[in-house]
Amino acid sequence: MAKSKFEYVRLFETEDRCLPNSWIVVRVDGKGFHKFSTEHDYEKPNDMRALSLMNKAATSVMEEFKDICLAYGQSDEYSFVFRKETQVYSRRSAKLSTNVCSLFTSAFVYYWSEHFPSSKPLYPPVFDGRTVLYPSNQNIRDYLSWRQADCHINNLYNTTFWALILKAGLTPGEAEQKLKGTLSGDKNEILFSQFSINYNKEPEMLRKGTILVRRKVPVALPDGSGTREKSQIVQLYTDVIGDEFWNENNHLLTIS
Amino acid sequence: MAKSKFEYVRLFETEDRCLPNSWIVVRVDGKGFHKFSTEHDYEKPNDMRALSLMNKAATSVMEEFKDICLAYGQSDEYSFVFRKETQVYSRRSAKLSTNVCSLFTSAFVYYWSEHFPSSKPLYPPVFDGRTVLYPSNQNIRDYLSWRQADCHINNLYNTTFWALILKAGLTPGEAEQKLKGTLSGDKNEILFSQFSINYNKEPEMLRKGTILVRRKVPVALPDGSGTREKSQIVQLYTDVIGDEFWNENNHLLTIS
Amino acid sequence: MAKSKFEYVRLFETEDRCLPNSWIVVRVDGKGFHKFSTEHDYEKPNDMRALSLMNKAATSVMEEFKDICLAYGQSDEYSFVFRKETQVYSRRSAKLSTNVCSLFTSAFVYYWSEHFPSSKPLYPPVFDGRTVLYPSNQNIRDYLSWRQADCHINNLYNTTFWALILKAGLTPGEAEQKLKGTLSGDKNEILFSQFSINYNKEPEMLRKGTILVRRKVPVALPDGSGTREKSQIVQLYTDVIGDEFWNENNHLLTIS
Amino acid sequence: MAKSKFEYVRLFETEDRCLPNSWIVVRVDGKGFHKFSTEHDYEKPNDMRALSLMNKAATSVMEEFKDICLAYGQSDEYSFVFRKETQVYSRRSAKLSTNVCSLFTSAFVYYWSEHFPSSKPLYPPVFDGRTVLYPSNQNIRDYLSWRQADCHINNLYNTTFWALILKAGLTPGEAEQKLKGTLSGDKNEILFSQFSINYNKEPEMLRKGTILVRRKVPVALPDGSGTREKSQIVQLYTDVIGDEFWNENNHLLTIS
Repeated sequence: MAKSKFEYVRLFETEDRCLPNSWIVVRVDGKGFHKFSTEHDYEKPNDMRALSLMNKAATSVMEEFKDICLAYGQSDEYSFVFRKETQVYSRRSAKLSTNVCSLFTSAFVYYWSEHFPSSKPLYPPVFDGRTVLYPSNQNIRDYLSWRQADCHINNLYNTTFWALILKAGLTPGEAEQKLKGTLSGDKNEILFSQFSINYNKEPEMLRKGTILVRRKVPVALPDGSGTREKSQIVQLYTDVIGDEFWNENNHLLTIS
Repeated sequence: MAKSKFEYVRLFETEDRCLPNSWIVVRVDGKGFHKFSTEHDYEKPNDMRALSLMNKAATSVMEEFKDICLAYGQSDEYSFVFRKETQVYSRRSAKLSTNVCSLFTSAFVYYWSEHFPSSKPLYPPVFDGRTVLYPSNQNIRDYLSWRQADCHINNLYNTTFWALILKAGLTPGEAEQKLKGTLSGDKNEILFSQFSINYNKEPEMLRKGTILVRRKVPVALPDGSGTREKSQIVQLYTDVIGDEFWNENNHLLTIS
Repeated sequence: MAKSKFEYVRLFETEDRCLPNSWIVVRVDGKGFHKFSTEHDYEKPNDMRALSLMNKAATSVMEEFKDICLAYGQSDEYSFVFRKETQVYSRRSAKLSTNVCSLFTSAFVYYWSEHFPSSKPLYPPVFDGRTVLYPSNQNIRDYLSWRQADCHINNLYNTTFWALILKAGLTPGEAEQKLKGTLSGDKNEILFSQFSINYNKEPEMLRKGTILVRRKVPVALPDGSGTREKSQIVQLYTDVIGDEFWNENNHLLTIS
Repeated sequence: MAKSKFEYVRLFETEDRCLPNSWIVVRVDGKGFHKFSTEHDYEKPNDMRALSLMNKAATSVMEEFKDICLAYGQSDEYSFVFRKETQVYSRRSAKLSTNVCSLFTSAFVYYWSEHFPSSKPLYPPVFDGRTVLYPSNQNIRDYLSWRQADCHINNLYNTTFWALILKAGLTPGEAEQKLKGTLSGDKNEILFSQFSINYNKEPEMLRKGTILVRRKVPVALPDGSGTREKSQIVQLYTDVIGDEFWNENNHLLTIS
């Protein structure tokens, strides 16, 4: 068969290699998850089952791609940070975004029943993906801070919004109206005075989001003679805005 | 919170709009499916359960994206052809590839148990995705012919290869050796003389792959007074190299 | 010397090949030519010296790049249309735009003194360049029509504007005010009634711009025994919107 | 006139903004300058007129684009380094490369007669251009070192090659043969022992190339009362591999 006659069409594919020596972020984001969360009775303001499923799916991605040095997740989104020097898929942008996005989605469906009582979701959930480059250490740090600030703002809003509905009996419209134009301090005050909620005592995972990093942990040797070190993916709920992930030159400490 | 301080990082995202007035193909392709098919006891040379699951996942994608006018699948890959004028996601390349790829993957896992007896795969399967542009009608036609020629070549090879193993008792190495350098005619001859298999009588879906198009089908009106037309996704197993999908100007007839 | 130590920086260059089977247009455009034309006493509304210099520079570009099948120029801009199949510079976008732009600029300065009495311009003139792809024959036709419509609109305006100033003694501000909101018919009427100018009798080069194409012309054989055909670049001042450059399938007739 | 009917073709232009926070280098390179230099009787191995013309053209570019903080030239090429934060032309890649390339070419032709006795070149010379991004300070430093290493290697070769031809009477073929496989030390030795040339005493501009930077220089006040500082473009012939352009964090010192 004249295969060669058609094979010229391969030349229409374009190169999309990421600039070398830049941080590569792949962010996946739930498509229509406002609707999805309602249809699947997500608890409000936060559903721990959904968040732990997100963390599980993200962990699957990090286990597959060893060059992801840090991941950050909140709500229905997760960002994966590949180390600057990665050569995975020759740094091809579409290869990176589609593989990460597909594996994340696949694991989300695959592990669903471990987190939700129902055996499967009502329909196949979808996440989109994108690849973004950050040239400097400050840029990638600011990227993570941007997502974490987003988490903070949304979670404070949602916590107050749902307290007004679930505990004070407001309608969604009334709650929205009440929160219109309020600052962070106002919402903290509403939570405290009206619902005796000290926002800063809320679970860190909800306030800060989840950071996944690789850490060396001691593992007992089989003969009982001691321990050896093993790399493991651990969850943290701290400030990426803070200094613990960064050395004095602003370098990400979690690479190796 | 100083959200704005970090928000500059959004500017690092790049525009990736596809050239207007060009066919957009998103192709998804199984990652490591040689291994995956072995681990999941796919029947050889073809597993009808796997192929019907692929077709089911692809149908889910076409139901979601109305601007896909035709899809073509074979083995562990599927190509989705968006009509030239589509404005879905403003024609952004990464949006298209990741959404299609995520939904395809999601549906593949979601509908797995309807096609395979075991309740779930051994681990989350992954598909990668890519977006390719074809400016002319002849180009998109040749693209589809390229994938279909690939189907033909691989399926003829695999049919003969597995007949030699499963029916003649050769080892994989011996079968590979025997087929080395053979032409299509040689493989047809081996199948016919040694196994009484007339390759041209093999199921068309295996020899041609699966084409998904939208067709108007008559649907009975509820009051029994007659029928109305409804667009439905149908499977065809014919030659995209042939003329039935194309008008005299080489235009794809299946658009509307 | 450790050359290799630094050579990795070549990997930071990106591929920018144009999609195959698409028309490639490189358009060059004068930078700050409103100011440049004033400083060099261009005659108003049109300076034939400047236009013939533009045409000369464009002809130099076409003589160098045999794959340019048509060029269209007006005012301080010129568009060069490479045939769809061109492999010049492996279709690399930046190579095409910078080479065309550099040669055009170089020829503009080089041939300046043949068109302007002064030996050289007051300072080095600059043209920017861009590469744009058009997938279909209708698209490239519409592109050329777009530039020609622009020529028509600007030239009719400028002809009327400068007649009001040079012949009726208006100030530029008064002329601008008088033309505000006028349609083509109004400007035609002003020209005819006030200045006895029948716009349609104005030189076609000014109204239509200049089209450069290659045409076979007969050349006398040295021995006087007859003629042979030779490809030559000729100037036309007709409608690209019309049919003479296009066959019944909308294909550009001037390719070969 | 139905201008709007055609204006849709503008949408076929693509965005090509450079990644923020990265060094942008535009390099221009003579097209066919081996032939050009022979045809214009460039002195061998180096023609000071040609080099000073290159420096003049590059200075014109730096005077126009204030965001170029450093330029480096050797042979028939020049690299222009825009500061990381530049917003010139919204960082559009093609705008930057074509404008720089056009102005460089224009100035090269424009100032030709100031450097060469003949009034004009035999034909319009051409330079191509490209835009390359470098994310880190080390990368841009290595880029410049790469070009300077190239200068060193070529100039040492050419100096020896032309000494063998012009002083020892070898043919080009014989000279090439003699230098085949030689190391830097060998060429230094040939120059010294055979032609009493101490390569390290050759003019620095030839051995190192030309660096253009902006420096504050004192300018006498008109009233004779003292001096004021003025930014001026100065030529240096030193090592970019060395430390004088870089602070302890590898930052380019010549930015402001």
